[in-house]
Amino acid sequence: MLLRLLSSASRAIAAKPHPLQTLAAAAAGATSTTRKLAAMAGNREAFRVAVGNTLERRLFYVPSFKIYGGVAGLYDYGPPGCAVKANVLAFWRQHFVLEEGMLEVDCPCVTPEVVLKASGHVEKFTDLMVKDEKTGSCYRADHLLKDFCKEKLENDNTLSPQKVEELNHILAVLDDLSAEQSGTKIKEYGIAAPDTKNPLSDPYPFNLMFQTSIGPSGLSAGYMRPETAQGIFVNFKDLYYYNGNKLPFAAAQIGQAFRNEISPRQGLLRVREFTLAEIEHFVDPEDKSHPKFCDVSDLEFLMFPREDQLTGRSATRLRLGEAVSEGTVKNETLGFFIGRVYLFLTQLGIDKDRLRFRQHLPNEMAHYAADCWDAEIECSYGWIECVGIADRSAYDLRAHSDKSGVPLEAHEKFAEPREVEKLVITPSKELGLAFKGDQKMVLEALEAMGETEALGMKAALESKGDVDFKVCTLGKDVTIKRNMVSINMEKKKEHQRKFTPSVIEPSFGIGRIIYCLFEHCFYQRTGKTDDEQLNVFRFPPLVAPIKCTVFPLVKVEKFDVVAKKISKALTTAGISHIIDITGTSIGKRYARTDEIGVPLAITVDSTTSVTVRDRDSKDQIRVEVEEVASVVKEVTDGQSTWADIMWRYPAHTALATDEEEASET
Amino acid sequence: MLLRLLSSASRAIAAKPHPLQTLAAAAAGATSTTRKLAAMAGNREAFRVAVGNTLERRLFYVPSFKIYGGVAGLYDYGPPGCAVKANVLAFWRQHFVLEEGMLEVDCPCVTPEVVLKASGHVEKFTDLMVKDEKTGSCYRADHLLKDFCKEKLENDNTLSPQKVEELNHILAVLDDLSAEQSGTKIKEYGIAAPDTKNPLSDPYPFNLMFQTSIGPSGLSAGYMRPETAQGIFVNFKDLYYYNGNKLPFAAAQIGQAFRNEISPRQGLLRVREFTLAEIEHFVDPEDKSHPKFCDVSDLEFLMFPREDQLTGRSATRLRLGEAVSEGTVKNETLGFFIGRVYLFLTQLGIDKDRLRFRQHLPNEMAHYAADCWDAEIECSYGWIECVGIADRSAYDLRAHSDKSGVPLEAHEKFAEPREVEKLVITPSKELGLAFKGDQKMVLEALEAMGETEALGMKAALESKGDVDFKVCTLGKDVTIKRNMVSINMEKKKEHQRKFTPSVIEPSFGIGRIIYCLFEHCFYQRTGKTDDEQLNVFRFPPLVAPIKCTVFPLVKVEKFDVVAKKISKALTTAGISHIIDITGTSIGKRYARTDEIGVPLAITVDSTTSVTVRDRDSKDQIRVEVEEVASVVKEVTDGQSTWADIMWRYPAHTALATDEEEASET
Repeated sequence: MLLRLLSSASRAIAAKPHPLQTLAAAAAGATSTTRKLAAMAGNREAFRVAVGNTLERRLFYVPSFKIYGGVAGLYDYGPPGCAVKANVLAFWRQHFVLEEGMLEVDCPCVTPEVVLKASGHVEKFTDLMVKDEKTGSCYRADHLLKDFCKEKLENDNTLSPQKVEELNHILAVLDDLSAEQSGTKIKEYGIAAPDTKNPLSDPYPFNLMFQTSIGPSGLSAGYMRPETAQGIFVNFKDLYYYNGNKLPFAAAQIGQAFRNEISPRQGLLRVREFTLAEIEHFVDPEDKSHPKFCDVSDLEFLMFPREDQLTGRSATRLRLGEAVSEGTVKNETLGFFIGRVYLFLTQLGIDKDRLRFRQHLPNEMAHYAADCWDAEIECSYGWIECVGIADRSAYDLRAHSDKSGVPLEAHEKFAEPREVEKLVITPSKELGLAFKGDQKMVLEALEAMGETEALGMKAALESKGDVDFKVCTLGKDVTIKRNMVSINMEKKKEHQRKFTPSVIEPSFGIGRIIYCLFEHCFYQRTGKTDDEQLNVFRFPPLVAPIKCTVFPLVKVEKFDVVAKKISKALTTAGISHIIDITGTSIGKRYARTDEIGVPLAITVDSTTSVTVRDRDSKDQIRVEVEEVASVVKEVTDGQSTWADIMWRYPAHTALATDEEEASET
Repeated sequence: MLLRLLSSASRAIAAKPHPLQTLAAAAAGATSTTRKLAAMAGNREAFRVAVGNTLERRLFYVPSFKIYGGVAGLYDYGPPGCAVKANVLAFWRQHFVLEEGMLEVDCPCVTPEVVLKASGHVEKFTDLMVKDEKTGSCYRADHLLKDFCKEKLENDNTLSPQKVEELNHILAVLDDLSAEQSGTKIKEYGIAAPDTKNPLSDPYPFNLMFQTSIGPSGLSAGYMRPETAQGIFVNFKDLYYYNGNKLPFAAAQIGQAFRNEISPRQGLLRVREFTLAEIEHFVDPEDKSHPKFCDVSDLEFLMFPREDQLTGRSATRLRLGEAVSEGTVKNETLGFFIGRVYLFLTQLGIDKDRLRFRQHLPNEMAHYAADCWDAEIECSYGWIECVGIADRSAYDLRAHSDKSGVPLEAHEKFAEPREVEKLVITPSKELGLAFKGDQKMVLEALEAMGETEALGMKAALESKGDVDFKVCTLGKDVTIKRNMVSINMEKKKEHQRKFTPSVIEPSFGIGRIIYCLFEHCFYQRTGKTDDEQLNVFRFPPLVAPIKCTVFPLVKVEKFDVVAKKISKALTTAGISHIIDITGTSIGKRYARTDEIGVPLAITVDSTTSVTVRDRDSKDQIRVEVEEVASVVKEVTDGQSTWADIMWRYPAHTALATDEEEASET
């Protein structure tokens, strides 16, 4: 569950557009960072517009239901975007499900309320909302505060150092503010509704799930799932059985998830419906080692541990093996997935220098989480959380176990029965008489004591006769007397150990990864004239929406015949391609194909051999017609690179260069 | 849009469990068919239970949210089911999108109301529902009537021939009954609530869409899409542009769709959430030929034209080319897709003798549809509609054009401007004076006249001075006088023709296809003892959830090393596989792998060569360790069959046969 709810949805799901700005800046009081980023914002904006225009013009994605004016936060992937997405998901399946032997499942989006009550979403999956008191327009309280603070910091030169510090502090703790705290600050700063300047209501929690009702009676509440993970948790028992009652194993799911955002922003990064790919790796809490950790331990990449964030340092390159052995990353399994995610993202085409693994700060993590790292990718919106990798301990399975009454646990059979000393706490009648209705909570608190604490109490009861004991669920101390409870270590023979497995969860926001990939692959090169900019997506063949284009050089039948022959061979080889028979110049056709990121182009300029051109280097080679499909397959399957094959074939230099012909595109 | 709404959802989406029974039987009054089917029902039921048990035990699919008691009509695909589904969808992409160069898109499930108002779903996507007047339990009116009629026909020997005919007639026209007609019959037959025998309410339409609300205000109604097609229609303009403003082209979409069924039945066949794969092929209504029709015209398979259904004949084998040339199938494009669907389904493993293409009867088709054929697959529930292939004319694009005000049309540019004679109808002031507020409707009716009719009116006006003219929108005749209007044929130069494209729509219910595939691939063979039945799924390699298992014969390190080496080679080759290291006998391990339909098994019984066993023939060959991954790939990629490769390698006969060892599974 990427962007996991903690105490409120916003704490976990906030896209953190400028963590450098909010976290590091606030921690170190480094307002200079803020100023520097503000100066960079102009370039980022221009880049974003350039890439965005290309993406929309070439139908990578467009706002949904455009002819009806669109709906905020909903987007359609057009043909090239859809192909990129299918390629990313296919690679995800190969890299995670197939290579790691995961159990993939496919569960419905429509989810009954009971499941999401158990998971905590019904109660806690909320953002704080305020309403324009006159028009009823809705805003996110944290957005308003953020916009206010940023605007002040960037444009108000009269701020005192104290005020700068205060505003930076607000930005840093934005996700932690309660409804009351947000409301107080909104009032104090005199923030009004952005469009109308009308007064605003007090902030109140708005649940982000799309609600519906299942069946015809209208009585069974349901929601569109906010994540895919719950479908795996509720199936734990069957999956464990399917795996031969053995741990560890991982289950995986790819599917749609839904969040009824209050005010979607940032294009594909914050949407109301999106594709998640989630893995739940179930593991014995007493052994989180991973047999394949050695395969990734030598990887080195940008990591941003908690301490570095809190002390205002930046992310640094660390060797994964050291990060685990030094305890920065809590266990091998978590480390293994961090490494695998790094390989996944960089093989897709994410720039390794704009990818970092950031550890959650204490205030970002749920109380039950053991450790949590986000793969963050830098794009024009800042560092974006694209994959969350969390050790969620036993929280999820326990929650569903409690709610459903079905035990979701694993067992380890001992080869020989083991004699164990176990703590046994037995209440007496006096406990009930003393606490009456509170008895259950007192007993539960007693049973929750660790061995040391319990033996300490036993000693104190024996020496003093009574002890004070804090019962959190009652919110007070109670007095336990000697005659109320017996505490003993008893010897027992055990044949097996029962336990609730821990869950390590890598959770991928596919749309966010794809958007960052678009930005990282986009560049412009000058065309025929210096002020002409040609757009290129340098997608690796793995994710390129179309692997190859075929151009008959001129419109003559003999070239058409060859083009069709090549097309047939490419289809048989399973290579997606298009034939461009428009009469325009080859240069223009190259520019068109570069703009959707096609890695290779075949120009049919003879009936025996053809010209194959590489998108990025613009190198051209001559290849026999019979051979060309297999050459293309070799490169697009990743068996060879362009550099590998180039020297095997004669270079081609006769054609007009791109620049000479592209200017009219 | 598989299972398209016509005047009511039930008309188009009814799963038609026994069309032979309802349609042909009623048309021919052939009650003997009914009786014969009743006798067969027992076997079908037993087969269904056997396959269903295996599917659920091996986690192909299970009821969703089982630990909370489940939700009717929602299912999870477990690991093998999920893999089969992914394989089916990958093949669909290869067979349709890639081979036909379709434009794939990916649109959200959450859909604003305006889109589904335009498409007619808000008004008409309903089933007739009745309520238990005391408990409020809901039932489908047609289910109650069907159950009543079937029960009577099967068990009441005292029925008069007239009564038999009447009940058969009800079954035949079930989908066409209005709320009033259903209500009358329910009362007449004294049908009460099945569980309580309480009286029932009158039938009323219940909309099958899951409703929700988009955004925080609660004011924007939205629905979970009931089909994926609308996402394509609303994008027509962009897609047409993307295709270089050329027709024909096809767009495709794979995605989830949702129907809040009143009372889901029949397992995977009638569910509340399902995966659709839909194609919208846009074509010039004046030219529905298809350049690749010749590729499929020689195919011969079971077809069930309208006339054969109405005259009580059965489906017969027809050559597709003849069915089109004789006009049984209305045009080549429709014929082309029927042929491609046939190839798709049979290559997946659907038995060609239990697959037929049934033409819609007049009462099943929408008024705008030109022709419609369903690919129906026979399974234990009867003949199931799995793919709908409809020529929907220009209906959908016109509906969205009208509602959105955005023209969704194509144009054909003429090479030379053409001089055309066009009918020009010009109103005069007198028309306005005569009809005042009705003027607009009168004028629209005049303009809607065909050429012949208009010239007839012109002649009549010239000879008689006035004519009576029916204006449908006014619901009456008006008198048109000579001075009110001038009607002339005028010569004009035209540079292009504008028109709304027709849509040919093949729509695939993926879950239904998969369920039928499960049944068609399932068989049992006797094990060691005669009464021991071993389950097998004879999935073709293309769809098999796992392509290969690897068994070390006994637990020794040297075999484990070889198994891991082979596993690595298989992974590199992209072949899904599992290693089974449990200590049980090879026979039992074969039985286990047969039961999830794994085509090939590799037994590691030496360090140099291994035994490869074919699931269906149980033949075994010896293959070198180095070579085995490529042999497996050859078969599972479909380049070779088992028969092709078997003769190339020595046979292996030394191992115990399956039967000897499998008995303890």
